[in-house]
Amino acid sequence: MRISKEHKILIVGLGLIGGSYAQGLSRKGYQVGAIDISQSSIDFALANKYISSGQAEVNKDYVSNFDVIVFALYPSKMIEWIEQYQSLIKENAILTDVSGVKGSNVYKIQSILRSDLEFIAAHPMAGREVYGVENANANIFKGANYIVVPTKNNSEEAVELCKSIGEELEFKNISTLSVEEHDEMIGFLSQLTHCIAVTLMTSKKSEHLAEYTGDSFRDLTRIAKINENMWCELFLSNKDELIKQMEAFEKEFDKLKTAIKEDDEQTIKEMMVTSTQRRKIFDK
Amino acid sequence: MRISKEHKILIVGLGLIGGSYAQGLSRKGYQVGAIDISQSSIDFALANKYISSGQAEVNKDYVSNFDVIVFALYPSKMIEWIEQYQSLIKENAILTDVSGVKGSNVYKIQSILRSDLEFIAAHPMAGREVYGVENANANIFKGANYIVVPTKNNSEEAVELCKSIGEELEFKNISTLSVEEHDEMIGFLSQLTHCIAVTLMTSKKSEHLAEYTGDSFRDLTRIAKINENMWCELFLSNKDELIKQMEAFEKEFDKLKTAIKEDDEQTIKEMMVTSTQRRKIFDK
Repeated sequence: MRISKEHKILIVGLGLIGGSYAQGLSRKGYQVGAIDISQSSIDFALANKYISSGQAEVNKDYVSNFDVIVFALYPSKMIEWIEQYQSLIKENAILTDVSGVKGSNVYKIQSILRSDLEFIAAHPMAGREVYGVENANANIFKGANYIVVPTKNNSEEAVELCKSIGEELEFKNISTLSVEEHDEMIGFLSQLTHCIAVTLMTSKKSEHLAEYTGDSFRDLTRIAKINENMWCELFLSNKDELIKQMEAFEKEFDKLKTAIKEDDEQTIKEMMVTSTQRRKIFDK
Repeated sequence: MRISKEHKILIVGLGLIGGSYAQGLSRKGYQVGAIDISQSSIDFALANKYISSGQAEVNKDYVSNFDVIVFALYPSKMIEWIEQYQSLIKENAILTDVSGVKGSNVYKIQSILRSDLEFIAAHPMAGREVYGVENANANIFKGANYIVVPTKNNSEEAVELCKSIGEELEFKNISTLSVEEHDEMIGFLSQLTHCIAVTLMTSKKSEHLAEYTGDSFRDLTRIAKINENMWCELFLSNKDELIKQMEAFEKEFDKLKTAIKEDDEQTIKEMMVTSTQRRKIFDK
Protein backbone atom coordinates (compact mmCIF):
# COMPACT_ATOMS: atom_id res chain seq x y z
CA MET A 1 0.00 0.00 0.00
CA ARG A 2 1.57 3.27 -1.15
CA ILE A 3 0.70 6.64 0.29
CA SER A 4 -2.07 8.11 -1.84
CA LYS A 5 -4.03 11.31 -2.17
CA GLU A 6 -6.84 9.57 -0.23
CA HIS A 7 -4.65 9.61 2.86
CA LYS A 8 -4.89 12.64 5.08
CA ILE A 9 -1.52 13.25 6.68
CA LEU A 10 -0.95 14.84 10.09
CA ILE A 11 2.46 16.23 11.05
CA VAL A 12 2.96 16.44 14.80
CA GLY A 13 5.74 18.94 15.52
CA LEU A 14 6.39 21.70 13.01
CA GLY A 15 10.13 22.24 13.34
CA LEU A 16 12.68 22.16 10.55
CA ILE A 17 12.01 18.54 9.61
CA GLY A 18 8.27 18.49 10.29
CA GLY A 19 7.91 21.72 8.35
CA SER A 20 9.95 20.36 5.46
CA TYR A 21 7.79 17.20 5.34
CA ALA A 22 4.68 19.39 5.32
CA GLN A 23 6.05 21.60 2.56
CA GLY A 24 7.21 18.68 0.41
CA LEU A 25 4.01 16.68 0.78
CA SER A 26 1.71 19.66 0.23
CA ARG A 27 3.57 20.54 -2.95
CA LYS A 28 2.92 17.02 -4.17
CA GLY A 29 -0.79 17.58 -3.67
CA TYR A 30 -1.34 15.75 -0.40
CA GLN A 31 -3.73 17.01 2.25
CA VAL A 32 -1.49 17.89 5.16
CA GLY A 33 -2.48 19.08 8.62
CA ALA A 34 -0.32 19.85 11.61
CA ILE A 35 -0.27 20.07 15.37
CA ASP A 36 2.35 22.14 17.16
CA ILE A 37 2.46 23.71 20.62
CA SER A 38 3.36 27.00 18.96
CA GLN A 39 0.43 28.74 17.26
CA SER A 40 2.87 30.99 15.41
CA SER A 41 4.51 27.96 13.80
CA ILE A 42 1.06 26.80 12.69
CA ASP A 43 0.27 30.28 11.36
CA PHE A 44 3.54 30.43 9.44
CA ALA A 45 2.92 27.01 7.87
CA LEU A 46 -0.66 27.96 6.95
CA ALA A 47 0.42 31.29 5.47
CA ASN A 48 3.05 29.53 3.36
CA LYS A 49 0.66 26.74 2.31
CA TYR A 50 2.81 24.02 3.88
CA ILE A 51 -0.43 22.80 5.51
CA SER A 52 -4.11 23.20 4.75
CA SER A 53 -5.13 23.06 8.42
CA GLY A 54 -3.42 23.11 11.76
CA GLN A 55 -3.88 23.81 15.44
CA ALA A 56 -2.08 24.01 18.74
CA GLU A 57 -4.81 22.13 20.57
CA VAL A 58 -4.92 18.34 20.51
CA ASN A 59 -8.49 17.08 20.31
CA LYS A 60 -10.44 14.20 18.81
CA ASP A 61 -12.35 16.31 16.31
CA TYR A 62 -9.10 17.21 14.63
CA VAL A 63 -6.75 14.26 15.21
CA SER A 64 -9.32 11.64 14.15
CA ASN A 65 -9.37 13.04 10.61
CA PHE A 66 -5.96 11.69 9.71
CA ASP A 67 -4.94 8.33 8.23
CA VAL A 68 -1.21 8.83 8.52
CA ILE A 69 0.61 10.63 11.34
CA VAL A 70 4.24 11.70 11.13
CA PHE A 71 5.86 12.52 14.47
CA ALA A 72 8.59 15.12 14.15
CA LEU A 73 9.17 15.56 17.87
CA TYR A 74 12.06 14.76 20.18
CA PRO A 75 11.85 10.99 20.82
CA SER A 76 10.90 11.42 24.49
CA LYS A 77 8.12 13.87 23.57
CA MET A 78 6.84 11.47 20.92
CA ILE A 79 6.42 8.70 23.48
CA GLU A 80 4.61 11.09 25.84
CA TRP A 81 2.33 12.32 23.05
CA ILE A 82 1.36 8.81 22.01
CA GLU A 83 0.74 7.73 25.61
CA GLN A 84 -1.46 10.75 26.22
CA TYR A 85 -3.35 11.09 22.94
CA GLN A 86 -3.48 7.76 21.12
CA SER A 87 -7.12 7.37 22.08
CA LEU A 88 -7.89 10.29 19.73
CA ILE A 89 -6.34 8.70 16.66
CA LYS A 90 -8.48 7.34 13.81
CA GLU A 91 -8.92 3.59 13.68
CA ASN A 92 -6.26 1.70 11.68
CA ALA A 93 -4.08 4.77 11.20
CA ILE A 94 -0.41 4.38 10.39
CA LEU A 95 2.12 6.29 12.53
CA THR A 96 5.68 7.06 11.55
CA ASP A 97 8.47 9.35 12.78
CA VAL A 98 11.73 11.07 11.95
CA SER A 99 13.76 10.31 15.09
CA GLY A 100 17.53 9.98 15.00
CA VAL A 101 17.58 7.02 17.39
CA LYS A 102 15.31 3.99 17.39
CA GLY A 103 16.17 1.51 20.16
CA SER A 104 15.03 3.86 22.88
CA ASN A 105 11.56 4.42 21.48
CA VAL A 106 10.37 2.05 18.72
CA TYR A 107 9.87 -1.06 20.87
CA LYS A 108 8.32 0.97 23.65
CA ILE A 109 5.84 2.67 21.31
CA GLN A 110 4.91 -0.58 19.58
CA SER A 111 4.30 -2.20 22.97
CA ILE A 112 1.97 0.52 24.27
CA LEU A 113 0.14 1.20 21.02
CA ARG A 114 -3.56 0.42 20.47
CA SER A 115 -3.76 -2.86 18.57
CA ASP A 116 -5.46 -1.36 15.52
CA LEU A 117 -2.72 1.27 15.03
CA GLU A 118 0.71 0.60 13.53
CA PHE A 119 3.95 2.46 14.19
CA ILE A 120 6.61 2.13 11.50
CA ALA A 121 9.84 3.99 12.26
CA ALA A 122 11.78 6.03 9.71
CA HIS A 123 14.85 8.24 9.78
CA PRO A 124 15.30 10.94 7.15
CA MET A 125 19.06 11.54 7.14
CA ALA A 126 18.85 15.24 6.49
CA GLY A 127 19.15 18.34 8.57
CA ARG A 128 20.58 21.79 8.77
CA GLU A 129 22.23 23.95 11.42
CA VAL A 130 19.12 26.09 11.67
CA TYR A 131 15.83 25.31 13.33
CA GLY A 132 12.14 25.91 13.11
CA VAL A 133 9.45 25.83 10.46
CA GLU A 134 10.68 29.22 9.20
CA ASN A 135 13.72 27.40 7.82
CA ALA A 136 11.78 24.45 6.41
CA ASN A 137 12.86 23.43 2.94
CA ALA A 138 11.90 20.15 1.32
CA ASN A 139 14.96 20.39 -0.93
CA ILE A 140 17.11 19.15 1.95
CA PHE A 141 15.75 15.67 1.21
CA LYS A 142 16.93 15.59 -2.40
CA GLY A 143 20.11 13.57 -2.59
CA ALA A 144 19.71 12.47 1.03
CA ASN A 145 19.19 9.01 2.52
CA TYR A 146 15.97 7.73 4.10
CA ILE A 147 16.05 4.70 6.33
CA VAL A 148 12.95 2.69 7.23
CA VAL A 149 13.36 0.74 10.48
CA PRO A 150 10.80 -2.05 10.76
CA THR A 151 10.51 -4.57 13.58
CA LYS A 152 8.85 -7.97 13.45
CA ASN A 153 5.65 -6.25 14.56
CA ASN A 154 5.40 -4.31 11.32
CA SER A 155 3.31 -5.31 8.34
CA GLU A 156 4.63 -5.25 4.80
CA GLU A 157 1.93 -2.75 3.93
CA ALA A 158 3.12 -0.26 6.53
CA VAL A 159 6.76 -0.64 5.44
CA GLU A 160 5.70 -0.01 1.86
CA LEU A 161 3.65 3.03 2.83
CA CYS A 162 6.52 4.41 4.87
CA LYS A 163 8.95 3.93 1.98
CA SER A 164 6.56 5.63 -0.39
CA ILE A 165 6.52 8.74 1.84
CA GLY A 166 10.30 8.85 1.37
CA GLU A 167 9.82 8.53 -2.38
CA GLU A 168 7.28 11.35 -2.46
CA LEU A 169 9.78 13.52 -0.58
CA GLU A 170 12.37 12.65 -3.26
CA PHE A 171 15.00 11.07 -1.08
CA LYS A 172 17.84 9.62 -3.12
CA ASN A 173 18.30 6.30 -1.35
CA ILE A 174 15.59 4.49 0.53
CA SER A 175 16.80 1.55 2.55
CA THR A 176 15.81 -0.68 5.42
CA LEU A 177 17.73 -1.46 8.61
CA SER A 178 16.84 -3.24 11.82
CA VAL A 179 16.60 -1.12 14.97
CA GLU A 180 19.98 -2.39 16.11
CA GLU A 181 21.67 -1.91 12.75
CA HIS A 182 20.20 1.58 12.55
CA ASP A 183 21.44 2.65 15.95
CA GLU A 184 24.92 1.24 15.32
CA MET A 185 25.12 2.98 11.94
CA ILE A 186 23.84 6.26 13.34
CA GLY A 187 26.12 5.99 16.36
CA PHE A 188 28.99 5.85 13.93
CA LEU A 189 27.92 8.08 11.04
CA SER A 190 26.04 10.79 12.84
CA GLN A 191 26.60 10.81 16.60
CA LEU A 192 30.33 10.07 16.58
CA THR A 193 30.87 12.80 13.98
CA HIS A 194 28.96 15.31 16.10
CA CYS A 195 31.07 14.31 19.12
CA ILE A 196 34.21 14.91 17.08
CA ALA A 197 33.05 18.28 15.77
CA VAL A 198 32.10 19.49 19.25
CA THR A 199 35.41 18.28 20.68
CA LEU A 200 37.38 20.05 17.96
CA MET A 201 35.73 23.35 18.90
CA THR A 202 36.08 22.93 22.66
CA SER A 203 39.66 21.67 22.69
CA LYS A 204 41.31 24.92 21.67
CA LYS A 205 40.42 28.43 22.64
CA SER A 206 41.51 30.96 20.09
CA GLU A 207 39.58 33.87 18.75
CA HIS A 208 41.82 33.92 15.72
CA LEU A 209 41.27 30.38 14.47
CA ALA A 210 39.10 31.60 11.63
CA GLU A 211 41.96 33.70 10.26
CA TYR A 212 44.24 30.74 9.84
CA THR A 213 41.98 27.89 8.96
CA GLY A 214 41.62 26.15 5.64
CA ASP A 215 38.53 24.37 4.42
CA SER A 216 39.29 21.17 6.30
CA PHE A 217 38.69 22.54 9.79
CA ARG A 218 35.65 24.40 8.54
CA ASP A 219 34.22 21.18 7.08
CA LEU A 220 34.91 19.11 10.18
CA THR A 221 33.21 21.62 12.45
CA ARG A 222 30.18 22.70 10.41
CA ILE A 223 28.01 20.47 12.60
CA ALA A 224 29.58 21.86 15.80
CA LYS A 225 26.74 24.39 15.82
CA ILE A 226 24.39 22.05 17.56
CA ASN A 227 21.05 22.10 19.37
CA GLU A 228 22.24 20.99 22.82
CA ASN A 229 18.84 19.81 24.03
CA MET A 230 18.05 17.62 21.05
CA TRP A 231 21.54 16.17 20.68
CA CYS A 232 22.04 15.54 24.37
CA GLU A 233 18.84 13.49 24.30
CA LEU A 234 19.92 11.65 21.13
CA PHE A 235 23.37 10.85 22.59
CA LEU A 236 22.02 9.60 25.91
CA SER A 237 19.26 7.54 24.33
CA ASN A 238 21.83 5.70 22.21
CA LYS A 239 24.51 5.74 24.87
CA ASP A 240 25.82 2.18 24.76
CA GLU A 241 26.18 2.16 20.99
CA LEU A 242 27.70 5.65 20.89
CA ILE A 243 30.27 4.78 23.57
CA LYS A 244 31.17 1.67 21.57
CA GLN A 245 31.68 3.78 18.43
CA MET A 246 33.69 6.40 20.33
CA GLU A 247 35.95 3.70 21.73
CA ALA A 248 36.47 2.07 18.34
CA PHE A 249 37.38 5.49 16.94
CA GLU A 250 39.76 6.19 19.84
CA LYS A 251 41.51 2.86 19.30
CA GLU A 252 42.02 3.49 15.60
CA PHE A 253 43.08 7.10 16.24
CA ASP A 254 45.62 5.80 18.72
CA LYS A 255 46.96 3.40 16.11
CA LEU A 256 47.63 6.34 13.80
CA LYS A 257 49.17 8.36 16.65
CA THR A 258 51.52 5.51 17.55
CA ALA A 259 52.53 5.13 13.90
CA ILE A 260 53.35 8.85 13.71
CA LYS A 261 55.27 8.71 17.00
CA GLU A 262 57.35 5.79 15.75
CA ASP A 263 57.94 7.17 12.23
CA ASP A 264 56.13 4.09 10.96
CA GLU A 265 55.58 5.40 7.44
CA GLN A 266 54.18 2.10 6.21
CA THR A 267 51.26 2.07 8.65
CA ILE A 268 50.54 5.78 8.12
CA LYS A 269 50.48 5.36 4.33
CA GLU A 270 48.42 2.16 4.49
CA MET A 271 45.77 3.93 6.54
CA MET A 272 45.75 6.84 4.11
CA VAL A 273 45.44 4.56 1.08
CA THR A 274 42.55 2.70 2.73
CA SER A 275 40.79 5.91 3.66
CA THR A 276 41.22 7.29 0.14
CA GLN A 277 39.83 4.13 -1.46
CA ARG A 278 36.85 3.96 0.88
CA ARG A 279 36.03 7.64 0.62
CA LYS A 280 35.99 7.50 -3.18
CA ILE A 281 32.90 5.29 -3.01
CA PHE A 282 31.00 8.28 -1.61
CA ASP A 283 31.56 10.32 -4.74
CA LYS A 284 29.92 7.83 -7.08
CA MET B 1 58.64 46.57 -1.33
CA ARG B 2 55.62 45.12 -3.06
CA ILE B 3 55.77 42.59 -5.88
CA SER B 4 55.72 44.52 -9.15
CA LYS B 5 55.60 43.85 -12.85
CA GLU B 6 59.38 44.43 -12.90
CA HIS B 7 59.83 41.22 -10.93
CA LYS B 8 60.22 38.05 -12.92
CA ILE B 9 58.71 35.19 -10.95
CA LEU B 10 59.85 31.56 -11.13
CA ILE B 11 57.61 28.77 -9.86
CA VAL B 12 59.54 25.62 -8.94
CA GLY B 13 57.15 22.68 -8.97
CA LEU B 14 54.04 22.86 -11.14
CA GLY B 15 51.52 20.84 -9.15
CA LEU B 16 48.09 21.97 -8.08
CA ILE B 17 49.36 24.86 -5.94
CA GLY B 18 52.33 25.85 -8.10
CA GLY B 19 50.10 25.74 -11.16
CA SER B 20 47.42 27.83 -9.44
CA TYR B 21 50.03 30.44 -8.41
CA ALA B 22 51.28 30.53 -12.01
CA GLN B 23 47.76 30.90 -13.39
CA GLY B 24 46.78 33.60 -10.89
CA LEU B 25 49.94 35.66 -11.29
CA SER B 26 49.98 35.40 -15.11
CA ARG B 27 46.40 36.57 -15.26
CA LYS B 28 47.43 39.61 -13.25
CA GLY B 29 50.04 40.41 -15.89
CA TYR B 30 53.18 39.12 -14.18
CA GLN B 31 55.97 37.41 -16.09
CA VAL B 32 55.92 33.89 -14.75
CA GLY B 33 58.31 31.05 -15.58
CA ALA B 34 58.42 27.52 -14.20
CA ILE B 35 60.65 24.55 -13.60
CA ASP B 36 59.21 21.09 -13.17
CA ILE B 37 60.68 17.62 -13.60
CA SER B 38 57.75 16.79 -15.87
CA GLN B 39 58.01 18.30 -19.33
CA SER B 40 54.32 17.54 -19.90
CA SER B 41 53.36 19.71 -16.90
CA ILE B 42 55.46 22.54 -18.40
CA ASP B 43 53.81 22.00 -21.79
CA PHE B 44 50.34 22.07 -20.25
CA ALA B 45 51.09 25.31 -18.38
CA LEU B 46 52.57 26.92 -21.51
CA ALA B 47 49.61 25.85 -23.65
CA ASN B 48 47.19 27.32 -21.11
CA LYS B 49 49.24 30.52 -20.71
CA TYR B 50 49.83 29.93 -16.99
CA ILE B 51 53.52 30.61 -17.73
CA SER B 52 55.38 32.43 -20.49
CA SER B 53 58.41 30.14 -20.28
CA GLY B 54 59.34 26.91 -18.58
CA GLN B 55 61.69 23.96 -18.67
CA ALA B 56 62.45 20.66 -17.02
CA GLU B 57 66.16 21.33 -16.92
CA VAL B 58 67.68 23.42 -14.13
CA ASN B 59 70.45 25.66 -15.46
CA LYS B 60 71.97 29.06 -14.78
CA ASP B 61 70.86 30.58 -18.09
CA TYR B 62 67.25 30.10 -17.07
CA VAL B 63 67.20 30.28 -13.27
CA SER B 64 69.28 33.47 -13.10
CA ASN B 65 66.55 35.44 -14.91
CA PHE B 66 64.22 35.49 -11.93
CA ASP B 67 63.91 37.96 -9.06
CA VAL B 68 61.39 36.02 -7.05
CA ILE B 69 61.23 32.24 -6.71
CA VAL B 70 58.22 30.38 -5.31
CA PHE B 71 58.91 26.80 -4.24
CA ALA B 72 55.85 24.60 -4.59
CA LEU B 73 57.61 21.33 -3.81
CA TYR B 74 57.41 18.86 -0.93
CA PRO B 75 59.43 20.45 1.91
CA SER B 76 62.20 17.83 1.73
CA LYS B 77 62.55 18.34 -2.03
CA MET B 78 62.69 22.09 -1.55
CA ILE B 79 65.66 21.79 0.80
CA GLU B 80 67.42 19.47 -1.64
CA TRP B 81 66.74 21.82 -4.56
CA ILE B 82 68.12 24.83 -2.72
CA GLU B 83 71.21 22.94 -1.57
CA GLN B 84 71.89 21.76 -5.08
CA TYR B 85 70.99 24.79 -7.19
CA GLN B 86 71.21 27.97 -5.11
CA SER B 87 74.44 28.89 -6.90
CA LEU B 88 72.36 29.42 -10.06
CA ILE B 89 69.99 31.96 -8.51
CA LYS B 90 70.20 35.67 -9.39
CA GLU B 91 71.88 37.92 -6.84
CA ASN B 92 69.57 39.37 -4.17
CA ALA B 93 66.59 37.26 -5.23
CA ILE B 94 63.75 36.62 -2.82
CA LEU B 95 62.64 33.02 -2.26
CA THR B 96 59.32 31.94 -0.82
CA ASP B 97 57.33 28.72 -0.57
CA VAL B 98 53.91 27.14 -0.02
CA SER B 99 54.82 24.38 2.46
CA GLY B 100 52.35 23.13 5.03
CA VAL B 101 54.98 22.88 7.80
CA LYS B 102 57.68 25.36 8.66
CA GLY B 103 59.80 24.26 11.63
CA SER B 104 61.37 21.41 9.70
CA ASN B 105 62.61 23.54 6.83
CA VAL B 106 62.60 27.34 7.34
CA TYR B 107 65.50 27.56 9.80
CA LYS B 108 67.48 25.00 7.86
CA ILE B 109 67.03 26.85 4.57
CA GLN B 110 67.86 30.21 6.09
CA SER B 111 71.02 28.76 7.63
CA ILE B 112 72.36 27.27 4.39
CA LEU B 113 71.28 30.09 2.06
CA ARG B 114 73.74 32.37 0.25
CA SER B 115 73.97 35.62 2.23
CA ASP B 116 72.61 37.81 -0.60
CA LEU B 117 69.44 35.70 -0.96
CA GLU B 118 66.44 35.82 1.37
CA PHE B 119 63.94 33.07 2.12
CA ILE B 120 60.57 34.20 3.48
CA ALA B 121 58.15 31.39 4.24
CA ALA B 122 54.45 31.45 3.38
CA HIS B 123 51.55 29.04 3.66
CA PRO B 124 48.56 29.42 1.34
CA MET B 125 45.76 27.61 3.24
CA ALA B 126 44.07 26.23 0.18
CA GLY B 127 43.97 22.92 -1.57
CA ARG B 128 41.78 20.39 -3.24
CA GLU B 129 41.47 16.62 -3.30
CA VAL B 130 42.89 16.53 -6.82
CA TYR B 131 46.46 16.98 -7.94
CA GLY B 132 48.59 18.30 -10.74
CA VAL B 133 48.78 21.40 -12.89
CA GLU B 134 45.84 20.07 -14.94
CA ASN B 135 43.62 20.87 -11.95
CA ALA B 136 45.20 24.26 -11.22
CA ASN B 137 42.68 26.97 -10.46
CA ALA B 138 43.60 30.29 -8.90
CA ASN B 139 40.03 30.66 -7.64
CA ILE B 140 40.86 28.28 -4.77
CA PHE B 141 42.67 31.23 -3.14
CA LYS B 142 39.66 33.51 -3.07
CA GLY B 143 38.16 33.46 0.40
CA ALA B 144 41.14 31.49 1.72
CA ASN B 145 43.77 32.38 4.31
CA TYR B 146 47.44 33.13 3.58
CA ILE B 147 49.97 33.02 6.38
CA VAL B 148 53.40 34.62 6.16
CA VAL B 149 55.92 33.05 8.53
CA PRO B 150 58.92 35.31 9.09
CA THR B 151 61.87 34.62 11.38
CA LYS B 152 64.24 37.20 12.90
CA ASN B 153 66.42 36.69 9.82
CA ASN B 154 63.80 38.21 7.55
CA SER B 155 63.72 41.82 6.39
CA GLU B 156 60.58 43.92 6.46
CA GLU B 157 60.89 44.33 2.71
CA ALA B 158 60.76 40.59 2.10
CA VAL B 159 57.78 40.18 4.44
CA GLU B 160 55.98 42.96 2.58
CA LEU B 161 56.80 41.44 -0.80
CA CYS B 162 55.61 38.04 0.37
CA LYS B 163 52.34 39.49 1.66
CA SER B 164 51.79 41.34 -1.60
CA ILE B 165 52.00 38.03 -3.51
CA GLY B 166 49.12 36.83 -1.34
CA GLU B 167 47.21 40.04 -2.16
CA GLU B 168 47.76 39.61 -5.89
CA LEU B 169 46.42 36.06 -5.59
CA GLU B 170 43.33 37.51 -3.87
CA PHE B 171 43.54 35.67 -0.59
CA LYS B 172 40.91 36.84 1.88
CA ASN B 173 43.00 37.07 5.04
CA ILE B 174 46.72 37.67 5.08
CA SER B 175 48.31 37.23 8.48
CA THR B 176 51.66 36.63 10.11
CA LEU B 177 52.67 33.89 12.53
CA SER B 178 55.98 32.77 13.96
CA VAL B 179 57.30 29.37 12.86
CA GLU B 180 56.24 27.85 16.15
CA GLU B 181 52.79 29.47 16.16
CA HIS B 182 52.28 28.35 12.58
CA ASP B 183 53.18 24.74 13.24
CA GLU B 184 50.99 24.59 16.33
CA MET B 185 48.06 26.13 14.47
CA ILE B 186 48.51 23.86 11.47
CA GLY B 187 48.99 20.83 13.70
CA PHE B 188 45.58 21.60 15.13
CA LEU B 189 43.61 23.03 12.20
CA SER B 190 44.94 20.97 9.34
CA GLN B 191 46.92 17.92 10.42
CA LEU B 192 44.68 16.85 13.31
CA THR B 193 41.62 17.15 11.08
CA HIS B 194 43.25 14.98 8.42
CA CYS B 195 44.11 12.40 11.10
CA ILE B 196 40.49 12.38 12.21
CA ALA B 197 39.13 12.04 8.69
CA VAL B 198 41.47 9.16 7.86
CA THR B 199 40.63 7.43 11.15
CA LEU B 200 36.88 7.75 10.52
CA MET B 201 37.29 5.96 7.19
CA THR B 202 39.58 3.22 8.47
CA SER B 203 37.69 2.46 11.67
CA LYS B 204 34.66 0.85 10.05
CA LYS B 205 34.49 -1.40 7.04
CA SER B 206 31.17 -1.24 5.30
CA GLU B 207 30.49 -1.01 1.62
CA HIS B 208 27.05 0.36 2.40
CA LEU B 209 28.02 3.38 4.48
CA ALA B 210 27.24 5.73 1.61
CA GLU B 211 23.63 4.50 1.56
CA TYR B 212 22.99 5.50 5.13
CA THR B 213 25.10 8.56 5.69
CA GLY B 214 23.93 12.12 6.12
CA ASP B 215 25.95 15.20 5.27
CA SER B 216 27.86 15.18 8.54
CA PHE B 217 29.91 12.07 7.85
CA ARG B 218 30.43 13.22 4.28
CA ASP B 219 31.76 16.59 5.50
CA LEU B 220 34.04 15.08 8.11
CA THR B 221 35.62 12.70 5.61
CA ARG B 222 35.94 14.87 2.51
CA ILE B 223 39.66 15.25 3.24
CA ALA B 224 40.07 11.50 3.82
CA LYS B 225 40.99 11.26 0.15
CA ILE B 226 44.58 12.11 0.78
CA ASN B 227 47.94 12.04 -1.00
CA GLU B 228 49.72 9.58 1.27
CA ASN B 229 53.24 10.62 0.27
CA MET B 230 52.78 14.33 0.83
CA TRP B 231 50.77 14.01 4.02
CA CYS B 232 53.00 11.36 5.57
CA GLU B 233 55.91 13.77 5.08
CA LEU B 234 53.92 16.69 6.51
CA PHE B 235 52.82 14.66 9.56
CA LEU B 236 56.30 13.37 10.34
CA SER B 237 58.00 16.71 9.84
CA ASN B 238 55.64 18.27 12.41
CA LYS B 239 55.49 15.18 14.57
CA ASP B 240 55.95 16.64 18.06
CA GLU B 241 53.36 19.34 17.56
CA LEU B 242 50.91 16.98 15.86
CA ILE B 243 51.20 14.41 18.65
CA LYS B 244 50.56 17.20 21.16
CA GLN B 245 47.42 18.25 19.28
CA MET B 246 46.23 14.65 18.94
CA GLU B 247 46.65 14.13 22.67
CA ALA B 248 44.81 17.34 23.55
CA PHE B 249 41.98 16.23 21.27
CA GLU B 250 41.92 12.74 22.83
CA LYS B 251 41.73 14.21 26.31
CA GLU B 252 38.80 16.46 25.42
CA PHE B 253 37.07 13.65 23.49
CA ASP B 254 37.44 11.47 26.55
CA LYS B 255 35.85 14.17 28.69
CA LEU B 256 32.79 14.10 26.43
CA LYS B 257 32.75 10.29 26.44
CA THR B 258 32.85 10.18 30.24
CA ALA B 259 30.03 12.74 30.44
CA ILE B 260 27.90 10.60 28.10
CA LYS B 261 28.73 7.45 30.08
CA GLU B 262 27.71 9.10 33.33
CA ASP B 263 24.54 10.78 31.98
CA ASP B 264 26.18 14.08 32.88
CA GLU B 265 23.83 16.27 30.86
CA GLN B 266 25.30 19.48 32.21
CA THR B 267 28.81 18.82 30.87
CA ILE B 268 27.49 17.55 27.54
CA LYS B 269 25.33 20.62 27.05
CA GLU B 270 28.07 23.01 28.19
CA MET B 271 30.43 21.57 25.62
CA MET B 272 27.77 21.88 22.92
CA VAL B 273 26.97 25.46 23.84
CA THR B 274 30.69 26.35 23.76
CA SER B 275 31.19 24.64 20.42
CA THR B 276 28.15 26.39 18.96
CA GLN B 277 29.33 29.81 20.13
CA ARG B 278 32.86 29.31 18.87
CA ARG B 279 31.80 27.89 15.53
CA LYS B 280 29.51 30.82 14.84
CA ILE B 281 32.57 33.09 14.59
CA PHE B 282 33.54 31.19 11.43
CA ASP B 283 30.38 32.23 9.63
CA LYS B 284 30.98 35.95 9.96
